[in-house]
Amino acid sequence: MSLRDRAAVVGVGTTPFYKRGQSYPRTTLEMAGTAILAALEDAGLRVEDLDGFAYYSGGYDSALLAQWLGVPEVRYSASVTGGGNGSAGSVGLAASAVASGMAEVVVSVMSLQQWERRFGAAFAAKQGEKDTGGGAYGPKPTSERDFIAPSGLLGPGQFFALLARRHMEQYGTTRHHFAEVAISTRLNAVNRPTALRRDPLTEEEYFSAHMISAPLCLYDFCQESDGAVAVVTTSAERARDLRHPPVYITGAAMGGNGRWGQAIGWLGMDEEYFASSGHRPVARRLYEMAGLTPDDVDVALLYDHFTPMVLMQLEDYGFCPVGESGPFVAEGNIRHAGGSIPVNTHGGNLSEAYIIGMTHVVEAVEQLRGTAVNQVADAEVALVTGGPAALPVSSLLLRK
Amino acid sequence: MSLRDRAAVVGVGTTPFYKRGQSYPRTTLEMAGTAILAALEDAGLRVEDLDGFAYYSGGYDSALLAQWLGVPEVRYSASVTGGGNGSAGSVGLAASAVASGMAEVVVSVMSLQQWERRFGAAFAAKQGEKDTGGGAYGPKPTSERDFIAPSGLLGPGQFFALLARRHMEQYGTTRHHFAEVAISTRLNAVNRPTALRRDPLTEEEYFSAHMISAPLCLYDFCQESDGAVAVVTTSAERARDLRHPPVYITGAAMGGNGRWGQAIGWLGMDEEYFASSGHRPVARRLYEMAGLTPDDVDVALLYDHFTPMVLMQLEDYGFCPVGESGPFVAEGNIRHAGGSIPVNTHGGNLSEAYIIGMTHVVEAVEQLRGTAVNQVADAEVALVTGGPAALPVSSLLLRK
Repeated sequence: MSLRDRAAVVGVGTTPFYKRGQSYPRTTLEMAGTAILAALEDAGLRVEDLDGFAYYSGGYDSALLAQWLGVPEVRYSASVTGGGNGSAGSVGLAASAVASGMAEVVVSVMSLQQWERRFGAAFAAKQGEKDTGGGAYGPKPTSERDFIAPSGLLGPGQFFALLARRHMEQYGTTRHHFAEVAISTRLNAVNRPTALRRDPLTEEEYFSAHMISAPLCLYDFCQESDGAVAVVTTSAERARDLRHPPVYITGAAMGGNGRWGQAIGWLGMDEEYFASSGHRPVARRLYEMAGLTPDDVDVALLYDHFTPMVLMQLEDYGFCPVGESGPFVAEGNIRHAGGSIPVNTHGGNLSEAYIIGMTHVVEAVEQLRGTAVNQVADAEVALVTGGPAALPVSSLLLRK
Repeated sequence: MSLRDRAAVVGVGTTPFYKRGQSYPRTTLEMAGTAILAALEDAGLRVEDLDGFAYYSGGYDSALLAQWLGVPEVRYSASVTGGGNGSAGSVGLAASAVASGMAEVVVSVMSLQQWERRFGAAFAAKQGEKDTGGGAYGPKPTSERDFIAPSGLLGPGQFFALLARRHMEQYGTTRHHFAEVAISTRLNAVNRPTALRRDPLTEEEYFSAHMISAPLCLYDFCQESDGAVAVVTTSAERARDLRHPPVYITGAAMGGNGRWGQAIGWLGMDEEYFASSGHRPVARRLYEMAGLTPDDVDVALLYDHFTPMVLMQLEDYGFCPVGESGPFVAEGNIRHAGGSIPVNTHGGNLSEAYIIGMTHVVEAVEQLRGTAVNQVADAEVALVTGGPAALPVSSLLLRK
């Protein structure tokens, strides 16, 4: 059996977006519930219809969420493993729950209230004590961390800087190419009321910004935001009777090359994958499942935590040959106006809000409904990717 | 679509079992990998065949596991949410991954190396510092914890004592009934070389043991153990060509009543569910999917972290009427010798080893292959449950 067109996204909902910590005293639970109610309303479904939760990045306590919402009976609750890598994959997981008959109406949700922790160090500093978590990013000793930290690799920005540098050395990519990702994405946010960064970004501003982890400067990093986004998935049959035309999940894939495991500290990837997003094998399966090619994709919502990773995903999803994403974006190909493959038309993690990739799913749905602020004319197929970081990376092909 | 008979368990593997902390310096990763290799060998499959991971209790880093094992490409990696509630459910999740075509050969695994933490307090004490995690069980303030802790509810034993006491008050259940669960389970461990507790347990010993959280004494608590258990699932078609006769997953269900959320501190359940295992609605769906009834079940592997929860599961899975599990076990019904429904023929969490419920899946497979140490004659159908705690609870019906 294939998941192709077995399920559809029928509702999306969000809370307002806030700068990091500014949603206080709203709780993560409250915001998750609010976004879920909005997504159900958008779908024309009731809380009583909801019977499943498909998360990523650990997920939430479904017992508390079910009680907060008033869900009568839960039939499915699972999470893609890892972190932001699973954003698109959580909707694929929902599709697999629906397709295998475990649940009928499944919600995926991300909710962030960052008065507390994101990565170990910040929280530890705030508490004035040693942190006990944070994995590879925290001060707690682990075999991976003890091996990596003496090299100065203490957080995601430092890890991804290595891949960016490798791409520059190997293919001649420049900071001007990174800048084009930041600038074109910001341009898409300018006219969006929901975006947290709406001032146009110039190349001068980009190059005068401080370096955080060379070659990555301030504008190569996404924001840290608060807020929640929910996405409701149900069967293709049931989707046809709901409020909006269904957005079919025509492809859903997750995983990656087993050696991507070395990405834990990019301790020496296979040559083929070192300067890649890790998405290449997943992209192959995704297109195969959907029976589509890169030429069929009208708009690409690519997980943008760091600008160079957008370049590498353009290569891994076949919009340009491997190594040529720099010149490709320099030619204006990812711009909403006139680009061959408009990217992150909502402003992405970089400029709208960083709800760990779930806004990308919302934008895909709006594009396919024809209601996007930066509408791509006649958009019929949208690609959505999860974070190119931990395995499994994940992606979706959605169609009208 | 229903999951019924779409997938099968084809391999099981374990490491040795150790008393808590005694597996040091083996790591969780090493033990997980060792159990997975054993399960693949048992199935007659190669590492190259493995392409999915379906976990519970958070799971593991699939990138590291894939690299440790040499898995060429991962296609699925997800986890049932919560903790031990998902042990059986992780195999159901594997079945849904296979049935929906996301992966072909999926492993579920639990690996415990407890030199470090289980629940917040112990670790915090060891480190001589405040703990920052542990959820409802840790000293970190949360809204639930702050509401619960002043009542003396600081750990699982205290939470489950409330349900046990309620069952006693409501139905006349006695400590003699709890004792029968402990004693009959120990009896099944006596002749198992893998069991960590092999001395027969007498009623005198049971009643002279110290009380931990009334009405639960030492022998009402399961062990804390180290070790790993892995279970390999693949499609029913592929299963027919492998080393052992397939053990079909004829039913797989997870979830629960939405108000089971109140179980976070059992702050006032619905009357119907207060003195229950939370499994009742899941049991109904499980039997319905499989087209079976309690009479069809030959052996029940019931998650036994606390003896009274075995009683409540006997009721919730229909082996006796609600409220009558005490007299039911007193009549010898769960004994291997002569019982109407032999329970935990491997010694369970209580007496074999506590690998958070995964040994129950192994025992079900051995019973249906006819190779169990305490073989139930002509066993054709086995029930396996996940921990009756957090939502989603989960269960499996396996058949020859």
